[in-house]
Amino acid sequence: MTERPTPAKRSTRGVGLVGSGFMGRSHALAYATASVVFPLARPPRLAFLADANEDLAARAARELGFARHTGDWRTLVADPEVDLVDVTAPNRLHKPIALEALKAGKPVYCEKPLAPTAKDAKAMADAAAEADLPTFVGFNYLRNPMSRLAREIVESGEIGEPYNFRGIHAEDYMSDPAGSWTWRLDPKGGGGAAADLGSHIIAMARFLMGPIERLTADLTTRFSPRPDAGGTMRPVEVDDEARALVRFQSGAVGTIEASWIATGRKMHLAFEITGTRGSIRLNMERMNELRLYVAGGKAGRGGYALIPAGPEHPDYAPFCPAPGHQLGFNEVKAIEVKDILAALSGGPAFLPDFGEAAEVQAVVDAVLMAGREGRWVAPQEAFG
Amino acid sequence: MTERPTPAKRSTRGVGLVGSGFMGRSHALAYATASVVFPLARPPRLAFLADANEDLAARAARELGFARHTGDWRTLVADPEVDLVDVTAPNRLHKPIALEALKAGKPVYCEKPLAPTAKDAKAMADAAAEADLPTFVGFNYLRNPMSRLAREIVESGEIGEPYNFRGIHAEDYMSDPAGSWTWRLDPKGGGGAAADLGSHIIAMARFLMGPIERLTADLTTRFSPRPDAGGTMRPVEVDDEARALVRFQSGAVGTIEASWIATGRKMHLAFEITGTRGSIRLNMERMNELRLYVAGGKAGRGGYALIPAGPEHPDYAPFCPAPGHQLGFNEVKAIEVKDILAALSGGPAFLPDFGEAAEVQAVVDAVLMAGREGRWVAPQEAFG
Amino acid sequence: MTERPTPAKRSTRGVGLVGSGFMGRSHALAYATASVVFPLARPPRLAFLADANEDLAARAARELGFARHTGDWRTLVADPEVDLVDVTAPNRLHKPIALEALKAGKPVYCEKPLAPTAKDAKAMADAAAEADLPTFVGFNYLRNPMSRLAREIVESGEIGEPYNFRGIHAEDYMSDPAGSWTWRLDPKGGGGAAADLGSHIIAMARFLMGPIERLTADLTTRFSPRPDAGGTMRPVEVDDEARALVRFQSGAVGTIEASWIATGRKMHLAFEITGTRGSIRLNMERMNELRLYVAGGKAGRGGYALIPAGPEHPDYAPFCPAPGHQLGFNEVKAIEVKDILAALSGGPAFLPDFGEAAEVQAVVDAVLMAGREGRWVAPQEAFG
Amino acid sequence: MTERPTPAKRSTRGVGLVGSGFMGRSHALAYATASVVFPLARPPRLAFLADANEDLAARAARELGFARHTGDWRTLVADPEVDLVDVTAPNRLHKPIALEALKAGKPVYCEKPLAPTAKDAKAMADAAAEADLPTFVGFNYLRNPMSRLAREIVESGEIGEPYNFRGIHAEDYMSDPAGSWTWRLDPKGGGGAAADLGSHIIAMARFLMGPIERLTADLTTRFSPRPDAGGTMRPVEVDDEARALVRFQSGAVGTIEASWIATGRKMHLAFEITGTRGSIRLNMERMNELRLYVAGGKAGRGGYALIPAGPEHPDYAPFCPAPGHQLGFNEVKAIEVKDILAALSGGPAFLPDFGEAAEVQAVVDAVLMAGREGRWVAPQEAFG
Repeated sequence: MTERPTPAKRSTRGVGLVGSGFMGRSHALAYATASVVFPLARPPRLAFLADANEDLAARAARELGFARHTGDWRTLVADPEVDLVDVTAPNRLHKPIALEALKAGKPVYCEKPLAPTAKDAKAMADAAAEADLPTFVGFNYLRNPMSRLAREIVESGEIGEPYNFRGIHAEDYMSDPAGSWTWRLDPKGGGGAAADLGSHIIAMARFLMGPIERLTADLTTRFSPRPDAGGTMRPVEVDDEARALVRFQSGAVGTIEASWIATGRKMHLAFEITGTRGSIRLNMERMNELRLYVAGGKAGRGGYALIPAGPEHPDYAPFCPAPGHQLGFNEVKAIEVKDILAALSGGPAFLPDFGEAAEVQAVVDAVLMAGREGRWVAPQEAFG
Repeated sequence: MTERPTPAKRSTRGVGLVGSGFMGRSHALAYATASVVFPLARPPRLAFLADANEDLAARAARELGFARHTGDWRTLVADPEVDLVDVTAPNRLHKPIALEALKAGKPVYCEKPLAPTAKDAKAMADAAAEADLPTFVGFNYLRNPMSRLAREIVESGEIGEPYNFRGIHAEDYMSDPAGSWTWRLDPKGGGGAAADLGSHIIAMARFLMGPIERLTADLTTRFSPRPDAGGTMRPVEVDDEARALVRFQSGAVGTIEASWIATGRKMHLAFEITGTRGSIRLNMERMNELRLYVAGGKAGRGGYALIPAGPEHPDYAPFCPAPGHQLGFNEVKAIEVKDILAALSGGPAFLPDFGEAAEVQAVVDAVLMAGREGRWVAPQEAFG
Repeated sequence: MTERPTPAKRSTRGVGLVGSGFMGRSHALAYATASVVFPLARPPRLAFLADANEDLAARAARELGFARHTGDWRTLVADPEVDLVDVTAPNRLHKPIALEALKAGKPVYCEKPLAPTAKDAKAMADAAAEADLPTFVGFNYLRNPMSRLAREIVESGEIGEPYNFRGIHAEDYMSDPAGSWTWRLDPKGGGGAAADLGSHIIAMARFLMGPIERLTADLTTRFSPRPDAGGTMRPVEVDDEARALVRFQSGAVGTIEASWIATGRKMHLAFEITGTRGSIRLNMERMNELRLYVAGGKAGRGGYALIPAGPEHPDYAPFCPAPGHQLGFNEVKAIEVKDILAALSGGPAFLPDFGEAAEVQAVVDAVLMAGREGRWVAPQEAFG
Repeated sequence: MTERPTPAKRSTRGVGLVGSGFMGRSHALAYATASVVFPLARPPRLAFLADANEDLAARAARELGFARHTGDWRTLVADPEVDLVDVTAPNRLHKPIALEALKAGKPVYCEKPLAPTAKDAKAMADAAAEADLPTFVGFNYLRNPMSRLAREIVESGEIGEPYNFRGIHAEDYMSDPAGSWTWRLDPKGGGGAAADLGSHIIAMARFLMGPIERLTADLTTRFSPRPDAGGTMRPVEVDDEARALVRFQSGAVGTIEASWIATGRKMHLAFEITGTRGSIRLNMERMNELRLYVAGGKAGRGGYALIPAGPEHPDYAPFCPAPGHQLGFNEVKAIEVKDILAALSGGPAFLPDFGEAAEVQAVVDAVLMAGREGRWVAPQEAFG
């Protein structure tokens, strides 16, 4: 969907945000940041905010600077001031909101996970294709300049043919055995750590290495039952940890792991890619650093170079003209928003869209299937 | 200056920004970020922007979202819509703008260096005191949550009595011997690396260790002459590197170094503080990490803990509820702006103000004097 | 086998070394080092050296300080001066030499891999049991003081119940696609990277986490064929990379990987153990450092402590009274030799012995079986 | 002193070791290690050991493998079996033993510090020159392969003209304020941390950057008095910390610091050398790693390379054919011994000899003078 500017075209793009929790606030911040940092053909206008009820929505709109608010997301979707529907609502609402928005002819920006199953995600992608509307999914770590640099290095052949990917996303927010049963543990969400964190490292794997052909996996539910808010012990049916052996279509291989009980790890989304002539390593706990090894240099001088993010890397310079000053988590989200707005204004298509998110979800589902059934699974099986 | 809210009180604070270069843009971004991230009694309103001429000002106002613009900073200072005068203009203009603003009864937020000499800075501080108006100087690294944590640890006695400070601010933006003569090399600016970078590590030293009693220093001008824009070779009269031995009033001692020709270093503002019972280390190249050593634990388990920034540390949580996700350079500037706005609304007094900046400048001047004269100098000598 | 010292007992122990390649030299150095560093009940006496032929043996004996030499290992095994048969000969000779030595009533110290298959290794372990003689296998990394510290931490419960092991041994000595076909690639050796490097990380996993119940795996042969010494292209039938999902008998889980084509990695034997209350990380590329995270300390002070090896850790003090001075690879081998000599003199039994090495080999074999057959395998299956 | 081998020449070199404390044992180990690791024209023979009395000497000779022993070092020096006098006795004995050995026509290997003052050290160097005998001083960190690599890089011009040296040697073995008064605090030893640790980083600075022209310094005695063994409080008259600003004869500049109360630091002998085209960093806490930055490579790929020690670096290969396996502190001492033996057999002259050690001591003395007198001092002043 490229955009033909017309004289009458208004100069901003109206954003309708559904949801004002952590990610809703992060999006609001990203719009504000992107507007100052990047030159935008049509800057975002915080037009409308919807939340679970009027009061909540009113307060959030005031705090985040939205012009209007509503307790009914349908009202927002239908509003003519809304050019882009931005969905940070609870996961179970992603599908109905997105479908309604697409029906209304509006592009959709949705947080991950797009849907609890690959089938659901595929249905959403199909709806977008039918409507011929662009969609956007918030796998924000792909927007980190160092992730982009990693891709540039891989694609350029600087490390030769990449043949191994060792990836993990480990955090420890569920590592207290006495911690409460929360919405994250609801099996209707489609998975535990594999879905919540695994989807990030899977999206990264696909971003850098291409499609996964097949995999096998093992799952662990370590702490069950857990007490819910009322003190009732509820069994945990989703995975606390997932580990997979993967094969990429390219012939590359690797491992992918996810854990939300990795005591001590806070933001350990990390990977190493090995190729015939070098390797790279990135760890989001130090998201402004990429390590690069290139074989075959001067004898006795070989080693991993620690490259600090700087203005020579994608999207860094608009934030800061000096290297080593570092971007933060939220600023990467601003890059995502910039790329979405650019795509809407005729720039390069944005990935991951709903289609790509469905592919990511298919890998998550394959991990769950493989883990339950103890066999090798092709992600395509997840689409049934 | 505390503020008594009245019913009629307008709910925003009008910002008048003078200058729209790198730091001007950074301030604009900080206002936008702070408004979304922090609950503010009176959020900033981008009221007025001044730059060297109308055209420049018009374009910057449009890009950064300011309501009005002017080519004459005096117009801005006088404007009733402007509640806070924010100075990111070239250094030589800091003093006239600040004095005019104070005369107009307005608080002033000024970028560092406040003035080329401690005497000038002191005159500005005196003017602020006489006008009984709050002032604010942008030594932003003090706002990093990890710098605040460092101070909390030092003040709490967790590492015992702090007795050694080893600090440096080294970058390499002037390390190309063939690089051009720029405004940074103008001796009227008051100093080279000692002023430009040294002031940051000196401000940090004072923030954490208190006043410096005396020091001796050595200065190097490594690359002179350099070609100016027209190709003429101009001698370099300011220091490329400065090294000082310092003694604090507390009895602590240390070294402070600054270099803008530190090939390979990009943002090496780093220090180590040693105390009787432990030590801490911080390096702004990894600004989201503090290292803490506490003596006397279990045998065989001692070592520096690498503490990742998280919601338990000052000002982190409003950005992100999860630890390890990292803040960026610009977000620290947003914390600075938040603290300034809070001080204006009756919160705790903001430091560094003009008075503190004058003290920092006195240390810079003392480094220059000691370097030239080869003797121990008390910073107070700089006030003449 | 404890030893009752008698007045007539000669005060040294005669070592008969078979093989004088890299590991033979390393053993010779270890005997020399251990003799100086540790108080030994009966220090080693370099009595006899055997190699492929007289000339080779003569030269090596002279260089390494052995009293006598022979071109026939049987002569060495039978010699009354030889109290301990030390086998660093090519892998295919491990079994015949060990069996002959056991038959002669002599303890055997053998380099890893003990045998090309678990069955062979088990036969050797059975022979040792039948002969009631102690045996010793050179999985030297277990002797690193930091490995011992890791075990102490795990066993003491300092990190709670350990439930995840993420281990790898990756190097890059085979990463040149044009590199030669060597003896390492001979499938009669029983495996490629899984055997050569995987056995180290498997031994470490068992040392720290206990037995592995079952696993599944994936294998890759990346570079085949390779040219042999004569220039003929020979197919590579062993794995260049192996990746396994494992479950321990304790209920813990994990991943284990091995690669000898991990471009850029030189000595990356690394693991992370996660438990309910903490975690540890060790990487042999920095073998003198252990990272320890313990949950539940003071808020805002949590982080991985980097513990440098020091005299409070096992076996460090005899080398150096000061912490942080570091041991090297060869010195860890000297600790191994010391532990073997101590076991022979009535000290604690040495592990890994032939029995443990057979168990390690069973895991290697299980990795190969699982990889070939695409299913979950119990290591016990390897014993047929 | 080159050596003409003759048929009658005995094939070993008799070592007479005076002292069997920590450093004595380390030397004994170094001889053992060097004999196995390196091909030596004339391997060392542990001929004679002297200590404070017969009993002590007898026990040490037995433990360390020396053939004979004595309670009188003069007997050892005079013995015809002793070809090399190795002095690890208490510092106050260095001079008399060395002078006697030189008088007896024997080369001397002496631990640092050679003497308590530069004048004393110079007298010893003069005696060696007069006797035309080689001498050797144990500044072992210069023998680390990574130190040698650093020098190779500096000399080759790979980082351009080196113009800044930032060095420190900090440990914390005296950081307990309640710690005892020990021999290290005896002012007759010539200095505190400046002498004990500072001499190492000064030797390194000279090794890499050449002679120091002048310096100024500041000294701190932090903890005084301290209780002696009998419980009497004794004043501390030597420095706990020393900090110096230095200028090299080459025109380079820098800082040098020493502290034995650097709480948390165990073996922090570290430096950074900056040059016009790059920089290097080395920290003996990770003695097997050198960091190298070279400016001007491909845009966006610049960064410090972490070079692990390997067989391509000086003296590593004889220990291990594989990179990244690491050498330890004691093994570096073995390299020192090898270099000494090689020099005695006609190889390249060994540095640091007594002359170089006197120059190092002159810098130490200059630091003490500058610290006391608050002025710039040329090391040559120390020779009076």
